[in-house]
Amino acid sequence: MDIKDYLEERIKIVDQALDRFLPSEEKYPQVIYKSMRYSIFAGGKRLRPILVLAGADLFNKDLKGHLPAACALEMIHTYSLIHDDLPAMDDDDYRRGKLTNHKVFGEDIAILAGDALLTLAFEILSREENIRDPLLSIKVIGELSAAAGIAGMIGGQVVDLESEGKGVDRNTLSYIHTHKTGALIRASVRTGGILSRAEDWELKALTQYAEALGLAFQIVDDILDIEGEEEKMGKRRGMDSVQQKVTYPSLYGLSAAREMVQELYNESLRSIEILGDRGNLLKQIAKFLVSRDY
Amino acid sequence: MDIKDYLEERIKIVDQALDRFLPSEEKYPQVIYKSMRYSIFAGGKRLRPILVLAGADLFNKDLKGHLPAACALEMIHTYSLIHDDLPAMDDDDYRRGKLTNHKVFGEDIAILAGDALLTLAFEILSREENIRDPLLSIKVIGELSAAAGIAGMIGGQVVDLESEGKGVDRNTLSYIHTHKTGALIRASVRTGGILSRAEDWELKALTQYAEALGLAFQIVDDILDIEGEEEKMGKRRGMDSVQQKVTYPSLYGLSAAREMVQELYNESLRSIEILGDRGNLLKQIAKFLVSRDY
Repeated sequence: MDIKDYLEERIKIVDQALDRFLPSEEKYPQVIYKSMRYSIFAGGKRLRPILVLAGADLFNKDLKGHLPAACALEMIHTYSLIHDDLPAMDDDDYRRGKLTNHKVFGEDIAILAGDALLTLAFEILSREENIRDPLLSIKVIGELSAAAGIAGMIGGQVVDLESEGKGVDRNTLSYIHTHKTGALIRASVRTGGILSRAEDWELKALTQYAEALGLAFQIVDDILDIEGEEEKMGKRRGMDSVQQKVTYPSLYGLSAAREMVQELYNESLRSIEILGDRGNLLKQIAKFLVSRDY
Repeated sequence: MDIKDYLEERIKIVDQALDRFLPSEEKYPQVIYKSMRYSIFAGGKRLRPILVLAGADLFNKDLKGHLPAACALEMIHTYSLIHDDLPAMDDDDYRRGKLTNHKVFGEDIAILAGDALLTLAFEILSREENIRDPLLSIKVIGELSAAAGIAGMIGGQVVDLESEGKGVDRNTLSYIHTHKTGALIRASVRTGGILSRAEDWELKALTQYAEALGLAFQIVDDILDIEGEEEKMGKRRGMDSVQQKVTYPSLYGLSAAREMVQELYNESLRSIEILGDRGNLLKQIAKFLVSRDY
């Protein structure tokens, strides 16, 4: 199986599920539904849902039981992007080559669309028809809310905002990356395991894999911001430097950053050696993510 | 028992529990914890937690099992106030006589503090030590997320924003009130019942009580905005008119609005007649809320 074909097929499955879980644009008041759908269907890579679904493959479970959590993670990720792009935050006009949510719908609706996506994530996870075992659902809600909250993603965003234009040391940069993007990637992989009733030692391996991969993924983002092709990425290059953001390449240099990606990639592979052949899919996903050019 | 003493004692219990559930201000990054605590402890009436706890009294359950949900509801309520006050929304500088969150911490941190409180609400409900029966916890998460989401509170806020400065008809005004404030009050009363394993007929009575009370509560707010004492309310009078908000008094006239409060109050009492003496506490709470002057 070619990993690109696999990922494309998974993106289709995730997009169809998101379309089912998101209420129709015909509902009243229409503007909020349009705003939520606008950002959800703005062309994301669907990395987090794909990692949740990979957990079903790994343990030979059917995808259907993993889809609500996969979509909930994408909603939380999308809400965080909408709020990050606001004028009071990163003040971005474009994302993935399209106008950001508040540029299309106004700041008020953008804030509420973000709030609504975060809330809908938990609503989907608690809906009777999406629950197979209440205890597993509660565990997933706990995993996602902790990863998205102050000790996770929001904490990372706060430190990121507070650090703009200031000299940031290596510990602070590591905190930002492991929290702002790392926490949700970690939660995605772990959720795939939790829903598959992974044993503790399996979950531990998956967690280590996810932590290494999450950081590698973010450093690749930082590198692409310096040398990526704008057309492929759908955004302008050099924004980190414009926004005076400290990144791995700016703090360690470009070649050291590249080496770190390679090391983290190797670490992600090593972490799941213990899973044997079952880990092959996750290894291919990791390889794809660290060698991507968008 | 005097209802004022009862409510004061309950506020103390809720405040202590909120203090336990909210992480310390000493944690890193401090500013977000300070911002969350600032708005949570800005002097709310704790109506929603009190209604959850009243459900424990009604069914003779101990309060402890209801406290996480009671605090989660206050967190969701507080997040909605922080976001509502933002410049892009209602643009309020003061609430309850204190500067609004964004005036103290900046817009970026205020948005994130709101996000964090909403997320923490679900984290608390899914934490192992707060769960007695996973199925009940999932039901409460479903109740809260539906009430706080697009088909509830957020939907009401969207229509409210879209209606500013426009002529609003009675149906639209009713939609705004039943969704923007009504949905969360309804969820509070229902959560108190759900956690007490109320029977369907009991939950139905509680729901009708909550719907009548929630609307009465909001109309009283509208009336106080016209004739309340600023000092007691901790906010300026006449803001609805300044913000060109259509309210019950502005649409129906002050005396008709007062009559509606009385009718809704009577309806709330009638709804719980079926519960017999067990409903006395809820009746007293309703009486207190419709005759309040702040």
